[in-house]
Amino acid sequence: MTPTATTGELARLVGGTLRGSPDVVIQGVGTVHDAGPHEIAWVTDVTYFKKASVCRAAAIIGPADLPDTLGAVVIVSDVEAAIAKVLAFFEPPLWQPPAGRDGSAYIDPTAELGEGVVVGPFVTIGPRTIIGRGTVLYSGVFVGADATIGASCQLWPNVFVGDRCQIGNRVVIWPSATIGRPGFGFILRERRLQRIPQIGTVVLEDDVEVGAGACVDRAKCGATRIGVGSKIDNMVQVAHNVRIGPGCILAGQVGLAGSVRLGTGVVLAGQVGVVDGVEVGDGVRATAKAGITHSVAAGMTVASYPARDRMTTLREQAAVRRLPDLADLVRKLSLRVEALEAAANNSQAG
Amino acid sequence: MTPTATTGELARLVGGTLRGSPDVVIQGVGTVHDAGPHEIAWVTDVTYFKKASVCRAAAIIGPADLPDTLGAVVIVSDVEAAIAKVLAFFEPPLWQPPAGRDGSAYIDPTAELGEGVVVGPFVTIGPRTIIGRGTVLYSGVFVGADATIGASCQLWPNVFVGDRCQIGNRVVIWPSATIGRPGFGFILRERRLQRIPQIGTVVLEDDVEVGAGACVDRAKCGATRIGVGSKIDNMVQVAHNVRIGPGCILAGQVGLAGSVRLGTGVVLAGQVGVVDGVEVGDGVRATAKAGITHSVAAGMTVASYPARDRMTTLREQAAVRRLPDLADLVRKLSLRVEALEAAANNSQAG
Amino acid sequence: MTPTATTGELARLVGGTLRGSPDVVIQGVGTVHDAGPHEIAWVTDVTYFKKASVCRAAAIIGPADLPDTLGAVVIVSDVEAAIAKVLAFFEPPLWQPPAGRDGSAYIDPTAELGEGVVVGPFVTIGPRTIIGRGTVLYSGVFVGADATIGASCQLWPNVFVGDRCQIGNRVVIWPSATIGRPGFGFILRERRLQRIPQIGTVVLEDDVEVGAGACVDRAKCGATRIGVGSKIDNMVQVAHNVRIGPGCILAGQVGLAGSVRLGTGVVLAGQVGVVDGVEVGDGVRATAKAGITHSVAAGMTVASYPARDRMTTLREQAAVRRLPDLADLVRKLSLRVEALEAAANNSQAG
Repeated sequence: MTPTATTGELARLVGGTLRGSPDVVIQGVGTVHDAGPHEIAWVTDVTYFKKASVCRAAAIIGPADLPDTLGAVVIVSDVEAAIAKVLAFFEPPLWQPPAGRDGSAYIDPTAELGEGVVVGPFVTIGPRTIIGRGTVLYSGVFVGADATIGASCQLWPNVFVGDRCQIGNRVVIWPSATIGRPGFGFILRERRLQRIPQIGTVVLEDDVEVGAGACVDRAKCGATRIGVGSKIDNMVQVAHNVRIGPGCILAGQVGLAGSVRLGTGVVLAGQVGVVDGVEVGDGVRATAKAGITHSVAAGMTVASYPARDRMTTLREQAAVRRLPDLADLVRKLSLRVEALEAAANNSQAG
Repeated sequence: MTPTATTGELARLVGGTLRGSPDVVIQGVGTVHDAGPHEIAWVTDVTYFKKASVCRAAAIIGPADLPDTLGAVVIVSDVEAAIAKVLAFFEPPLWQPPAGRDGSAYIDPTAELGEGVVVGPFVTIGPRTIIGRGTVLYSGVFVGADATIGASCQLWPNVFVGDRCQIGNRVVIWPSATIGRPGFGFILRERRLQRIPQIGTVVLEDDVEVGAGACVDRAKCGATRIGVGSKIDNMVQVAHNVRIGPGCILAGQVGLAGSVRLGTGVVLAGQVGVVDGVEVGDGVRATAKAGITHSVAAGMTVASYPARDRMTTLREQAAVRRLPDLADLVRKLSLRVEALEAAANNSQAG
Repeated sequence: MTPTATTGELARLVGGTLRGSPDVVIQGVGTVHDAGPHEIAWVTDVTYFKKASVCRAAAIIGPADLPDTLGAVVIVSDVEAAIAKVLAFFEPPLWQPPAGRDGSAYIDPTAELGEGVVVGPFVTIGPRTIIGRGTVLYSGVFVGADATIGASCQLWPNVFVGDRCQIGNRVVIWPSATIGRPGFGFILRERRLQRIPQIGTVVLEDDVEVGAGACVDRAKCGATRIGVGSKIDNMVQVAHNVRIGPGCILAGQVGLAGSVRLGTGVVLAGQVGVVDGVEVGDGVRATAKAGITHSVAAGMTVASYPARDRMTTLREQAAVRRLPDLADLVRKLSLRVEALEAAANNSQAG
């Protein structure tokens, strides 16, 4: 059942130039370190290949300067794109519940399901909700009332989508993510925290992906919005009224506080946090664990807490590392100045 | 189906003073930036209103110094409380499963359900568990054995409540939160990590709220306890034997290690962490990403890692920013001292 | 129904030496601060006992230098192991669904379930999946196709296990954890983020524990692997192709980026993050919130961001705390040098 391909076929698949035999049969993909004798590996840079003392792969995909030490070498100009194609060829399709609607599902009679929608076991769909053609709801998914879900989406097990949320086409939501719980807002009055109602909604545009256990909260009013094609990893927190532009990448455990705005193509590494109301410009990158407390201009790379230009933080960290030496130097200088002062006093006195 | 109100009605609702027409029909709420021509907006400070170059709202709620540039202005002394009332007026009720017990639910015959309890589809309720009147269990909720859940609670889809947990009245638990898994405790003996049994429980007092995906772990012995009216956001970790006082606010992704104690009215911003056993006094505030490694006295505002008084950390950050300049200055001073020493030597020699 | 034991029985259970009455009836366990008059408490160090102004416990377990102030004292050499045994004695078994397969479960006819497997309500099991004897699947668990789950495992409510994942024996997975979603990998081509297929799998070896809401992602190729007996707390992110050695402890909200490698017995405290590709040696410890950006040699204890040797970071933090004083000193030195220079000039001029 596992697909196989010859090196010649794979070279054609990726539009590469083959050196060596076109007839080597490949059954899978591995890294340069752990690929087996029937697998193809890849390197984006020839130095990685040289570092791997032994590579047992049957073939390798890489740049033009790869040595011909293996049975077959496929030369490409874009290794990452090529290996993505090879991985797609070998990718086993993930299991989904049988076509149609599982008999156990709770589907409100006023919900509208498009052609080819798959409703897995134990799914709940509320009144007036509309689900586009070809969308798959895995076991235990809950969609509230008046929600709209586009075509060809995947909602993995136990995903929650609240009332009135609007989800585009080809959106993928991984297990146990929560879309559209009311935002976290309270006011303290008469010594009690009182809920601020959150009457807005959540909009996930086309091709958005939301990771397992991630949360996108319903807006106070208007919408919390994630732009076309943005990809959000596991356990990311997107608070109420956040707006994320198109093509952003938010790595695992990132947290965006209320009303944060991200431009286009922003990349936030793991565990980054952004304080409420902050604007992050187009193309900004933040390194892991950065804490963004003020707005960041387009194109910057920021780091550390509070987040600033990455090069600045590196210089500061280096200065802090030398700080004990600096303190020592100042102590010694102080003694030398004292000695000079004493000498000057003596000579004056003299 | 959407409710509407006139500006006159809304002014009465919030106890405000109306300037302008009482007959403008309002259909919803928006921010000063994005409210539409049939919506009411709000500002807490007149400067926000002036900053918004164009406000298309039909009316606005705000403080007494608001200009009369819109059709209607509602003047109130407490804008936040007023807008909460207006939002509540326009808030559509969230859908819940039909009254009664869904036929699919697994309910142990020894469980006791109060009047008006709603048991959604695919719910599991263990033996001897007691659920108070009017509480709603959404789809996929699991409540173990011997648990007690008060009246008028909401347990959203796929919430887990373990055996013997005690949950007060009007408690709200958002999707996929985990209340009462055994605490995370191991001892290393004979080169193996051995589980320390966790025989305690979890107590959530009245009016507590727990966010989506958050975890409150079962105590080793005694109880992990969250005080009256405390509000906990998404993906917050509350480890075993933690005690949280009343009226606390824990923002998204906060983590409290074992046996941490929070006093009354503590506010922890997003991604704050507290090390095990630490006591945090009444009214303490911690800014985003603070790492609290030692006990904090009541009333302090702390920041940074390791967390200290916020003003101190700001001063230190400023000093670090000037550190490269300081090092430069010391280098130059050193040269000048050298020159002075040489001159002194010369003059002595002379 | 609660078990009881006499002090004599408990002393025998833990292999300890009893001082005082062997006939005191004990009904539970409490801390030295809150144990009641029918409970046994423990202290690992006599100073804790002295600090607790009033201890109402009926008996206490501790080291040899404990005073005989309570009715009964059980002296042991390893208090932690002893109290674990006592807790195990008093631990009420957690409720699990009735034996056999709940009628509501969706079980593909090609799945193979071992003897004594418990399948709770609303469980989904995909084709060709194999589940070992005595394993318990609580309500709402989803296991995809071609997965293997060993014997005597516990999968708590709403756990997700993806296709082809391999789970060992005695593995415990807490509620809403996600094992085997495809890793988070994209390439930007033609201005769109394109998915990199993730064709690998996840391997959890024997005796692994995974916390509530935690995520272990499917590898790009090969396997994301967690070694024998490693324990992972709530909301931990383990990205694709991570390899965790045996006997590691990862506390709550830790995040490991792609291809991170942890050796044997690594201990990461809460909210620690490790940057992609980094290797962390055997026995390394990282304190809370550390951000590990470079490989760490075996045996080190690291702290802070970027993570370095803990003692070094403590010295640096102390130096930073004194930095304002240092700057002040330099300013004054500068003035004194100026004065010396002026005097020297004068004397020269003179």
